[in-house]
Amino acid sequence: MFYIPTRVFTGKDALTNNKEYLTRLGHKALIVTGKGSAKKNGSYNDVIDILKESKIEYSVYEGINENPTVESIMDARDYGVLEACDFVIGIGGGSALDASKAISLMMYHKDSSWEYLYDSSVSSDMLPVAAIPTTCGTGSEVTGVSVLTRLDLKTKKSSVHKLYPAVAFVDGKYLKTAPSSIICNTAMDSLAHMIEGLVHKKATDYTRMCASSGLELWRSVKDVISGDRQATDEDLQNLMDASTMAGMTIAQTGTTIPHALSYPITIGLNIPHGKSVSYFQAEFLKAMDKADRDWILGKAGLKEPDELDELFKKACNPEEIPLKYREIAYEELCSNKAKLSSVPFKIDDNVLRKIAGI
Amino acid sequence: MFYIPTRVFTGKDALTNNKEYLTRLGHKALIVTGKGSAKKNGSYNDVIDILKESKIEYSVYEGINENPTVESIMDARDYGVLEACDFVIGIGGGSALDASKAISLMMYHKDSSWEYLYDSSVSSDMLPVAAIPTTCGTGSEVTGVSVLTRLDLKTKKSSVHKLYPAVAFVDGKYLKTAPSSIICNTAMDSLAHMIEGLVHKKATDYTRMCASSGLELWRSVKDVISGDRQATDEDLQNLMDASTMAGMTIAQTGTTIPHALSYPITIGLNIPHGKSVSYFQAEFLKAMDKADRDWILGKAGLKEPDELDELFKKACNPEEIPLKYREIAYEELCSNKAKLSSVPFKIDDNVLRKIAGI
Repeated sequence: MFYIPTRVFTGKDALTNNKEYLTRLGHKALIVTGKGSAKKNGSYNDVIDILKESKIEYSVYEGINENPTVESIMDARDYGVLEACDFVIGIGGGSALDASKAISLMMYHKDSSWEYLYDSSVSSDMLPVAAIPTTCGTGSEVTGVSVLTRLDLKTKKSSVHKLYPAVAFVDGKYLKTAPSSIICNTAMDSLAHMIEGLVHKKATDYTRMCASSGLELWRSVKDVISGDRQATDEDLQNLMDASTMAGMTIAQTGTTIPHALSYPITIGLNIPHGKSVSYFQAEFLKAMDKADRDWILGKAGLKEPDELDELFKKACNPEEIPLKYREIAYEELCSNKAKLSSVPFKIDDNVLRKIAGI
Repeated sequence: MFYIPTRVFTGKDALTNNKEYLTRLGHKALIVTGKGSAKKNGSYNDVIDILKESKIEYSVYEGINENPTVESIMDARDYGVLEACDFVIGIGGGSALDASKAISLMMYHKDSSWEYLYDSSVSSDMLPVAAIPTTCGTGSEVTGVSVLTRLDLKTKKSSVHKLYPAVAFVDGKYLKTAPSSIICNTAMDSLAHMIEGLVHKKATDYTRMCASSGLELWRSVKDVISGDRQATDEDLQNLMDASTMAGMTIAQTGTTIPHALSYPITIGLNIPHGKSVSYFQAEFLKAMDKADRDWILGKAGLKEPDELDELFKKACNPEEIPLKYREIAYEELCSNKAKLSSVPFKIDDNVLRKIAGI
């Protein structure tokens, strides 16, 4: 299946130039965002200017944490319902966007408890969401995925509902004030999405279409990610678009082994998601069929899996993951039959241990 | 903007394997199809089997002509309303699919006259449409376009409404019984969509994404189109997917000069659309920037614009277009400011005459 119902506007001033697609979503917006970066990069002000000009009311739920918990979703939901908002604007990285989608679902089903997020027998109807990414890794603006932290399970778990934003505004200028660590970590996440989407059992010519073009854009900014040159405005847009195309890829396939391994690492050690997921990519590349590996590396402008590992180290300064956590990640993956069977190549325990680094 | 709201299932038995996405569209289907080919290629029977099994009623409006007229849309609309159908299944080539979308719009607005199709001030709400292509050129299964014949204007004119199917089933097996002339003509149309979408002013990295992968698939079946080898099942699927990706391309950009020139030729001389539009591609390629031309030809596995012309001659046996009709096409294009300004390169009268062949 290929399905991307989100209307995507891309390029400089995508939001301001197409503001009618934001304002027509409803009468009162709940703005969902993180802890201040949206104000710094200009996206928040762009939104407020448009809403004020169009005389659309809004309330703001600020302070979505990284790896938002189910509890924080319910808190924001209650606030949005109290404020009588009828659409949601998510501004930020993957955490804010994933949260905005889950909040919109729960606002629509305003009397339901958090278990609704994980109940596949009920309706996925949601309030309309506008997604404005300000990092370059999540792809959440075009996926149905909302990954939330389950403190009860000590890991991250996606809602079972497919929650697509109605509209996304993908503008590289919102990356301009981002710390390079955020750009590097999230750009590594977008690469991970393309690699994992490409070798997924659900991959088709259409997911290859998205990942192929995304990898070409990613390749064009590789030297920015490695820190070898400063980003131009065009680079920032390419980083954003590569991430959105990577999102379009995993929207069809889902992710696979490295993502599954990364969740306990992120939660247990508080390591950013893009970084966590990159620990496992080089060995994952080595485990797949050579033809796939060579094709991916070629598109990304890399020669060997180890070159990717070097780039990762240069870009993200990763700390060593203690063996204990690698073991936890491995154990958790072993109990996740769906992820284990999501790759089209044979994966025995030896290979799995190698990927997990134990 | 990038927007493809249609849910696309692709590959062998795409329809049967995902039948719940057909049956959930409504309670009674209006099946819209051409003159018998849907019965021959198995698509009609596949649909009927699924509807019967799911106890969903249906009525059949058979006999949509090539280049369907606005009058035929209204006739089918009246029938669909009389039969109380609440969704539409279009099976066939571009004519049947474009018709099914327009019929669904007019069924929804059941008291409106045909002018509704060309009134941009009114709602585009429509009944849900399932699109099942059985040729490999239109891309209509993923576009909002519905091109209809306007006998009053002696040309073809798209409805101003954006009419996207809710779901599309793209299965190469429905090409198996198609005459090679249909495959060749429509495959040339899909190539035209990619060329015209790529050099359109509205082209973005996302349209290039679709066209790039579509061209790669097209290249893989070039020898089938030229008649140099028999099509395998994989080729037939690639022909279909190239066409759908080409549709995804023009869904964002629209078409440009060769398409505009082709309409009076198709209507005046009754030449199939894919053939009409191919007369003008080689000169159109020569008129564009060299970098774009080389990129397109390279992706399609061609060296020179004239090689494309030779392939066209070999595949489609085109007859000479009388000068009078080329002049009519040229005059009509000259009066179409939107199409004339849709290319990103300078186009003076000399170039235009060259493309039109006068």
